[in-house]
Amino acid sequence: MKNIPVVMIIFGGSGDLAHRKLYPALFNLYEQGLIHDNFAVIGTARRPWSHDYLRQQVVDAVHETHNEVDENSLKNFASHFYYQSHDVTNVEHYETLKNLAQELDDRYSAQGNRLFYMAMAPRFFGTIATHINDQKLTGSGFNRIVVEKPFGRDLKSAEELNKQITASFKEDEIFRIDHYLGKEMIQNILPLRFTNPLIKNIWNSDNIKNIQVTLAERLGVEARGEYYETSGALRDMVQNHIFQIITLLAMPEPKAIDAESIHQAKQELLDSLVIPTPEDVKKHFVRGQYAGSDTTFAYRKEPKVDENSTTETFVAGETKFKKGPVKDVPIYFRTGKEFKEKKNRIDIVLKHANTPYGGVHSNNITIEIDPQSKLYITINGKKIDTDGIRRENLTYAFSKEEMAKVPDGYERLLHDVFVNDSTNFTHWAELKRYWEFIDAVEDAWKKENEAGNPDIVQYPPYRMGPKEADRIFESPTGHWIYE
Amino acid sequence: MKNIPVVMIIFGGSGDLAHRKLYPALFNLYEQGLIHDNFAVIGTARRPWSHDYLRQQVVDAVHETHNEVDENSLKNFASHFYYQSHDVTNVEHYETLKNLAQELDDRYSAQGNRLFYMAMAPRFFGTIATHINDQKLTGSGFNRIVVEKPFGRDLKSAEELNKQITASFKEDEIFRIDHYLGKEMIQNILPLRFTNPLIKNIWNSDNIKNIQVTLAERLGVEARGEYYETSGALRDMVQNHIFQIITLLAMPEPKAIDAESIHQAKQELLDSLVIPTPEDVKKHFVRGQYAGSDTTFAYRKEPKVDENSTTETFVAGETKFKKGPVKDVPIYFRTGKEFKEKKNRIDIVLKHANTPYGGVHSNNITIEIDPQSKLYITINGKKIDTDGIRRENLTYAFSKEEMAKVPDGYERLLHDVFVNDSTNFTHWAELKRYWEFIDAVEDAWKKENEAGNPDIVQYPPYRMGPKEADRIFESPTGHWIYE
Repeated sequence: MKNIPVVMIIFGGSGDLAHRKLYPALFNLYEQGLIHDNFAVIGTARRPWSHDYLRQQVVDAVHETHNEVDENSLKNFASHFYYQSHDVTNVEHYETLKNLAQELDDRYSAQGNRLFYMAMAPRFFGTIATHINDQKLTGSGFNRIVVEKPFGRDLKSAEELNKQITASFKEDEIFRIDHYLGKEMIQNILPLRFTNPLIKNIWNSDNIKNIQVTLAERLGVEARGEYYETSGALRDMVQNHIFQIITLLAMPEPKAIDAESIHQAKQELLDSLVIPTPEDVKKHFVRGQYAGSDTTFAYRKEPKVDENSTTETFVAGETKFKKGPVKDVPIYFRTGKEFKEKKNRIDIVLKHANTPYGGVHSNNITIEIDPQSKLYITINGKKIDTDGIRRENLTYAFSKEEMAKVPDGYERLLHDVFVNDSTNFTHWAELKRYWEFIDAVEDAWKKENEAGNPDIVQYPPYRMGPKEADRIFESPTGHWIYE
Repeated sequence: MKNIPVVMIIFGGSGDLAHRKLYPALFNLYEQGLIHDNFAVIGTARRPWSHDYLRQQVVDAVHETHNEVDENSLKNFASHFYYQSHDVTNVEHYETLKNLAQELDDRYSAQGNRLFYMAMAPRFFGTIATHINDQKLTGSGFNRIVVEKPFGRDLKSAEELNKQITASFKEDEIFRIDHYLGKEMIQNILPLRFTNPLIKNIWNSDNIKNIQVTLAERLGVEARGEYYETSGALRDMVQNHIFQIITLLAMPEPKAIDAESIHQAKQELLDSLVIPTPEDVKKHFVRGQYAGSDTTFAYRKEPKVDENSTTETFVAGETKFKKGPVKDVPIYFRTGKEFKEKKNRIDIVLKHANTPYGGVHSNNITIEIDPQSKLYITINGKKIDTDGIRRENLTYAFSKEEMAKVPDGYERLLHDVFVNDSTNFTHWAELKRYWEFIDAVEDAWKKENEAGNPDIVQYPPYRMGPKEADRIFESPTGHWIYE
């Protein structure tokens, strides 16, 4: 692995994401030699930390996430970190930051390479991007910017933000990050689809009845009620994670396995994404809020949540494409808070075989993303005692040892940013289509809300979402495979 | 389960097969109520046993194969057994047998139903069949005959035997038994093929590269050298078990799941079986003999084996069909003595996917018959550490509890005889084709032998057969999947 020279500036360097994810990931990349002598990291945020305080934070963050650490190596790693207290609206502060970056560039021979990481509250992304441009923070080498989600809160704001960023960065310098694309089983989708004749041959509208994507969270909104009120499950989970997964499931085969070919195949698919009408939303979407129980709060009673809130903590819906291998196949999704368990999975439900046997079930291909990396195929086999048919699961589950080897999504994706591989990041054209879809649903809901009769299901906590989620299926016998 | 009235006559009632398999199987069917009050069994053989002695043998046989037994029930079961000392060539003895059968029919209200079971040395089958006819042993109700393998030792002798049997029995009264067709995973082949779109869609010449059937035995010929010299692996294993398996793998989809439709589909396939030329045998067959080691005998040194014997203890070969879903696909088989382990399995090897990925392996579907009932699919997935591809096995293996529930093949097949279901028995027309194939190979070998230069590989014991078995493959990169 080559040693990549760079000065990295993390906006939000005192924050939770930097602490839990970025610092440990950077340490792993440092241990692997991807960054080594010629790098410096500037953490910047409002708090008045010292360099040493940040370095201690970095050391702590690595300890918290690693069982065994080479302390000398860690100490040396942390010595590359610098802190700059910063007010995102203050022009002078950007000048200071620029000077520090240049000073560190000289000290570490970073060859004018700059990597900016937006890890703070999304409302500041635009301001920071504008200042990076106005105060010319970019370097004389490569310049890259990593932008956390959410990228806007609707198409209009996303376009505005994109305009602010593209003032300083070209599309191929912008890495819109979605850590789901760093997950093992998500990265396994294309290899599974395109290297296996067994799977490839049935991955089409002739054979697939529907596809079901479930991203179920066990927890409620907890302390994040205030933020959640501005988002909801659709924006928080569907606009990014779920659409990324659906795109990987439905895209045509790329011409080659490289960023350009993959993005081209994705775009080809997304051009054919069906934007739902208000009628479609009514028929094929369900929104809900967790209703509380003897021991838990209802969403509307959570701290800083409006008691008449119409923000959904659950959404189930349907997407369809007019092109690609699963053209016209319903792709259902559901996601939200206070499910019975954390469970992220994909179920590919096949049509029944035309067979002389009776009592036959559908074949399903299931990709479990969390909590365990797992793949299984549900098929029919002979019952032992009689001539009847029973279901059998052919399973491949990662062992503990394998699970331990799986790198964190952030480590993978930061690696990709360093080596300039944009395969697992979202291009603007893709994001635009996602927002067009989300806006259509949000608009339909907004009209319902304004008409004073919003159809928001109140669902009991700790089940697999509201039972009303079954009504989105096109077929009267349609149902969620995982219950 | 209905109670089927019958008088059953077992030729070879003092033998090993009756003791180890038939008596325990009959007891299980008795416990299930398939035979209950209205049945009697006559064991007949040369030895001068008494009724009581046979009954004690039956009790012992059940104890030896069952962990827990209801002793009252077993005693009552055994009381239905009678012994008749018998010389197969003696006309008078058949008269006695006929009279005993009629007497028991009256006593047990067996409604004139007769079931004859040929469980003795195959050389007597013809004689017994002729006497059954001449002395008119058949009853006024149903008459059925079960014939153990081998059914002849070539096409000519099989035709002769068939003629002798059909003098008294119509084709649909003849149950040519092959206990492999009673095995769980063999009975699972058609349901797996025809109820699963995932499997059905790739089960064709477009997708299957080759099929590999392995019936590997750990043991040598042991005390059976004298018999084995008259048989060899080709007659002992290929003519029956392997051809039965291959037929199930290659046959077209039957119109319905009943004996007639299944036999019709089998026959359609077998009509297109390619009979090998001497040239084919030379190229696509390998025969061998185990060579012995420091601690084991070579086959040619086994007791009662000719020291210049040309009898094969190993054979690998190729079959092909001109019709059916796997038209023209090479179906390879290997079987024999002194493999490294007992392992009966089927590997369906698929062609590689046309894929933009590199380093891709073939997809395989593996059905393990023995020692464990198991099904697995080998597919490609992403390597955890890199972007490379690795093999993953999606596995379904019977649990211990499930294995314990699997009935013995004989129990299943006897049940089928009682209920007159011939699905899992070999029709004459099928058998005839098998012998035509075997004769072609035996003839080619015979000519080689007579030319004084037989190509018989001497192979080291306790490996997966001779390494020369790889040379039968049509593709230069062809090889046995299981090594």
